Amino acid sequence: MLGADLEAVRRRSPLVLSITNFVTVNDCANIVLAAGASPVMCEIPEAAAEFAAAADVVAVNLGTQQPLSLESARIAAEVARERGLPAVLDPVGAGASKTYTASARDLLTTGAFSCIRGNISEIRALAGRASLTRGVDAGSADAVTESNLPEMISFIRAYAAASGAIIAASGAIDLVSDAERTFVIRNGHPMMPRITGSGCMLTVLTAAFLAASPEHPLEAAAAASCAMGLAGETAHASLGPGEGTGTFRTRLLDAMSLMTGAALDGGAKYEVR
Amino acid sequence: MLGADLEAVRRRSPLVLSITNFVTVNDCANIVLAAGASPVMCEIPEAAAEFAAAADVVAVNLGTQQPLSLESARIAAEVARERGLPAVLDPVGAGASKTYTASARDLLTTGAFSCIRGNISEIRALAGRASLTRGVDAGSADAVTESNLPEMISFIRAYAAASGAIIAASGAIDLVSDAERTFVIRNGHPMMPRITGSGCMLTVLTAAFLAASPEHPLEAAAAASCAMGLAGETAHASLGPGEGTGTFRTRLLDAMSLMTGAALDGGAKYEVR
Amino acid sequence: MLGADLEAVRRRSPLVLSITNFVTVNDCANIVLAAGASPVMCEIPEAAAEFAAAADVVAVNLGTQQPLSLESARIAAEVARERGLPAVLDPVGAGASKTYTASARDLLTTGAFSCIRGNISEIRALAGRASLTRGVDAGSADAVTESNLPEMISFIRAYAAASGAIIAASGAIDLVSDAERTFVIRNGHPMMPRITGSGCMLTVLTAAFLAASPEHPLEAAAAASCAMGLAGETAHASLGPGEGTGTFRTRLLDAMSLMTGAALDGGAKYEVR
Repeated sequence: MLGADLEAVRRRSPLVLSITNFVTVNDCANIVLAAGASPVMCEIPEAAAEFAAAADVVAVNLGTQQPLSLESARIAAEVARERGLPAVLDPVGAGASKTYTASARDLLTTGAFSCIRGNISEIRALAGRASLTRGVDAGSADAVTESNLPEMISFIRAYAAASGAIIAASGAIDLVSDAERTFVIRNGHPMMPRITGSGCMLTVLTAAFLAASPEHPLEAAAAASCAMGLAGETAHASLGPGEGTGTFRTRLLDAMSLMTGAALDGGAKYEVR
Repeated sequence: MLGADLEAVRRRSPLVLSITNFVTVNDCANIVLAAGASPVMCEIPEAAAEFAAAADVVAVNLGTQQPLSLESARIAAEVARERGLPAVLDPVGAGASKTYTASARDLLTTGAFSCIRGNISEIRALAGRASLTRGVDAGSADAVTESNLPEMISFIRAYAAASGAIIAASGAIDLVSDAERTFVIRNGHPMMPRITGSGCMLTVLTAAFLAASPEHPLEAAAAASCAMGLAGETAHASLGPGEGTGTFRTRLLDAMSLMTGAALDGGAKYEVR
Repeated sequence: MLGADLEAVRRRSPLVLSITNFVTVNDCANIVLAAGASPVMCEIPEAAAEFAAAADVVAVNLGTQQPLSLESARIAAEVARERGLPAVLDPVGAGASKTYTASARDLLTTGAFSCIRGNISEIRALAGRASLTRGVDAGSADAVTESNLPEMISFIRAYAAASGAIIAASGAIDLVSDAERTFVIRNGHPMMPRITGSGCMLTVLTAAFLAASPEHPLEAAAAASCAMGLAGETAHASLGPGEGTGTFRTRLLDAMSLMTGAALDGGAKYEVR
């Protein structure tokens, strides 16, 4: 079922406007292309408005935010809302920086974001919970585990209800939830956080999936998480002697570019609660 | 013959100053190095003036333009003009954004750019023709094909005459033209637009070739297009099972770094009209 | 002995705040992760202050400096000084641009930087010596060679004494010195300057090592240089037919991510003078 959502990305090739950070922007463009969608990035409000008017979805990532990119993000988000487009916010660094947390909350007041995707520490920070983030990585004490799963699902679902957005919290276990249902996803590999950009790439991939399957956004966001995790598994399984994180990063793009809908259906590991 | 131009890049190792976008800037630096030239990038006008005073060529890419980079681009272009250096403009996003189109035209008023290199939709937009670009990718309706080749050559040649610059329009068929002659180039591979940066890399590569062979700029620009296309062919031919766009990107740099003049002469597919 | 410093990075996983250039920022994040540390980057002073308050070390790279990043760098450096953290300055482009040289000197007046790491031309420029840099690469006339080694060691040691910082000058021979002792390091491979970012990656790697072994900073900085050079050797040794600079770059990250303390001890080539 989720495989059909990947096929929709390849068939419809949505135009994904990203206002994103400069650390992982190249990886983000390449994963969007690998999935079959079309990326565009910009840094000034005038262009953000113009590209948003032509785009199928807007993705905002706050990792290296500065005044110009924040203004561009706000304008792109407002155009998305006016046009009824999906929009994804990745609140990188929320919790670690009060300035970043405030920027993310400020953007949420636009009412434009239909999906918030971040690591669990960032999601906790946005929701006003204690957050043990460190830099831009999730704090281990915040992690979703098999033992705290029921309470984490409750938290994510409650925040989805409160925010009116789909919440996609990534980690060893990904949770993707609206106010009613939660996909508990066990794809992925521990090598993924050992390269930069795994989370940022998932954000723009989620945007591409939301744009291609607007009729069922929760499933689409879950499909993106499964696809990213499955690409990580495939990339890791391909590593030979002497191949480490550099080759892993390359193979992650390989895996996404070659993934079929059938492979995603066969490899997706999730349950719905 | 074109192979000698590649050898000139390796022998003279020109210093290529790029004012470029942050999406593909790393790829641009790496392709310049792979060709045997030396890259330098900056973002402030003071440094742009200083680096341009030492550089052998200036390349401007407007993909993530903002006020500071535009001012830097203008100053670098003016220094290039005063010093009689070649300068290349890549009008990324022209046609897709009026703001971007206006920025590109404004820079052209410096009279500094001896070469304009972009996809066919961007070139059409700059020339005031209808342009069907989508984001930063050429619109398929704009494509140069075997059937519309004569009229596209006429258009490119007329725009070369009007602008006083060499026009290099890339696509499945590349056209590189001055007001008199047009290289019709059939190198390349359909996987190239499936990674980000193919066009941006060709822009800085063209700059390196122009700097190394200033005595025949049209041939030099054509040689750069053939070299980039041939690198794409070589990269694709090297792919094994499980290798997709990530590995393709890596092998593109491999192919450029290992390409000899003889290999370029043997692999270049072009005619002059 | 140096291997224990690599093991300390993996065990302590220091948080490395980098205010860096956008050309090589992705490579910098990935090499920090490959070494076992945790990277964070930002571009605004408010966030720089917050991340520096949580970081274990600050690294500043001036390659694409602009007003906002310079202000962020200054603030991060001041927080580092107040907290007694190590801080590394990479004066990219010093000597090539008077503006860049002035920025680097201005940052040094904070008294925050316990290590200055650059190529030999940049170090010469900072120290007020004639510098033959070209763009962002060291001038060959400045190179440390076996024949000028004694005088170069004297120069580096004198500048270490004058600046109060560890000086790490990279090239075919790396020199890492405080006012008393100098590590002369002969690791590395000529392919390293054929990709962008070798120097920038060494800067953030040095920062990670300094943070993990604050009890002996000179050895830690030397260990980082040996580790980077050894990764280059390992990467080059792994190349097969058709593999050039693109694959080399990937394998450099592979080699760092897989390097053990024992391998570093076995492969480090240095003498102390």
